Amino acid sequence: MIFITNDDGYQAKGIAELIEIACEFDKVIVVAPDGARSGQSSALTVNMPITFQPISTNSKYSIFACSGTPVDCVKLAFSKVFGIEKPKMVLSGINHGSNSSINVIYSGTMGAAIEGAMYGVPSVGMSICNHDPNADFNHVKRYFKHIIQQVYNNGLPQGIALNVNAPASGNLRGIKICRQSKGLWSEEFMASPTPRGYDCYWLTGEFSNVETQATDTDEYALSNGFVSVQPVHTDMTHYKSIDALRYLE
Amino acid sequence: MIFITNDDGYQAKGIAELIEIACEFDKVIVVAPDGARSGQSSALTVNMPITFQPISTNSKYSIFACSGTPVDCVKLAFSKVFGIEKPKMVLSGINHGSNSSINVIYSGTMGAAIEGAMYGVPSVGMSICNHDPNADFNHVKRYFKHIIQQVYNNGLPQGIALNVNAPASGNLRGIKICRQSKGLWSEEFMASPTPRGYDCYWLTGEFSNVETQATDTDEYALSNGFVSVQPVHTDMTHYKSIDALRYLE
Repeated sequence: MIFITNDDGYQAKGIAELIEIACEFDKVIVVAPDGARSGQSSALTVNMPITFQPISTNSKYSIFACSGTPVDCVKLAFSKVFGIEKPKMVLSGINHGSNSSINVIYSGTMGAAIEGAMYGVPSVGMSICNHDPNADFNHVKRYFKHIIQQVYNNGLPQGIALNVNAPASGNLRGIKICRQSKGLWSEEFMASPTPRGYDCYWLTGEFSNVETQATDTDEYALSNGFVSVQPVHTDMTHYKSIDALRYLE
Repeated sequence: MIFITNDDGYQAKGIAELIEIACEFDKVIVVAPDGARSGQSSALTVNMPITFQPISTNSKYSIFACSGTPVDCVKLAFSKVFGIEKPKMVLSGINHGSNSSINVIYSGTMGAAIEGAMYGVPSVGMSICNHDPNADFNHVKRYFKHIIQQVYNNGLPQGIALNVNAPASGNLRGIKICRQSKGLWSEEFMASPTPRGYDCYWLTGEFSNVETQATDTDEYALSNGFVSVQPVHTDMTHYKSIDALRYLE
């Protein structure tokens, strides 16, 4: 059985595309948010309860909608939805929008994939660099299918999730294993009046890739027509700084 | 100026303690959530606007309450609250509860500290291993003050945030620079009836430290009476897996 979730909600086009690919390999169980949960990172719902409801089921897949975050969906699925059979693979996506570079930190898609890896299951987050709800996925299908097939057959190193991103369109040139490019967002909140006399603020901003010369990064791969694959782990320690900080002891 | 935020909300005891310590070094600006935002990781509010309101101001500090997540607070502060003067330091906490080991992934306290580091400002997340809203902070004050003073004077390596955790109580033995211990949560959702005929689920669970023999981890430091200090960065790439995954290309 393959488990699928996402952060755009169970009704998104991207998850339907992913279900279709995954059904070629195994039976599929979906527990996905009941609406959009973009930018939810590894957020958990701790101060209120969550619920889940069956949406549809057939011989190939069962879909449940959950009121929580993407990571809640994974935890709830492992705890309450699966029976004795645990999934052979966790897939998250296909996200409508890039999760390359620093976006991995904010991504609910990747939060869910990382969570799957914590359960010891080979886990892959998949995204295309196109926010359009009606995005065309035809150019990425054979590459995503190839990655799913390989991971389904061969597994992944323990505790590692893959962050897979694909260019928005075009004839793709292949797949590149990459490191995360250094990048940053320049935020500009758009002020908008409220009837209460104060403004509210909508997050907006612009991403820029800091490492424009590097050729081993996800940003390089994406801007050169490749699907990027970044192995991600959960150890956030910056080992090189450990000795430099001994003076604090 | 020192900027302070947290994930327990501006009314929490822990942030009041942190404001008191920080005011010994510089003027303080606080933009913190208007209520509890535990487990918010690096979540962003993208599908609705956020607001902020002045709460109190005096010669030492100004406090604003924000409707968003801890990371929203940091982004909004840098974009809309600070004037030309950017903070010399970002402090997040003091969190009521541990953010050691795998908890760094889920922590809103650390989400905010990591965000501060992305703005190029020395940033420190501070937590004690005690969830009690009335937790006693007296045993940690001199250690947290020492760390703040050192970072205020010397800065941190570019892009690095510190994840500082302290034991719940006792006579502390000092400070240790650590790596993140491998740990995991065993989830058990508590089912609770609703008037609609289906159950809702409350997240609960138990943390366990996987690396019980290691002596260089945050969990070792904490269980031996030390304040743990983990340097954290935002590159989630698992470099050792890059070559092992070339077969996917």
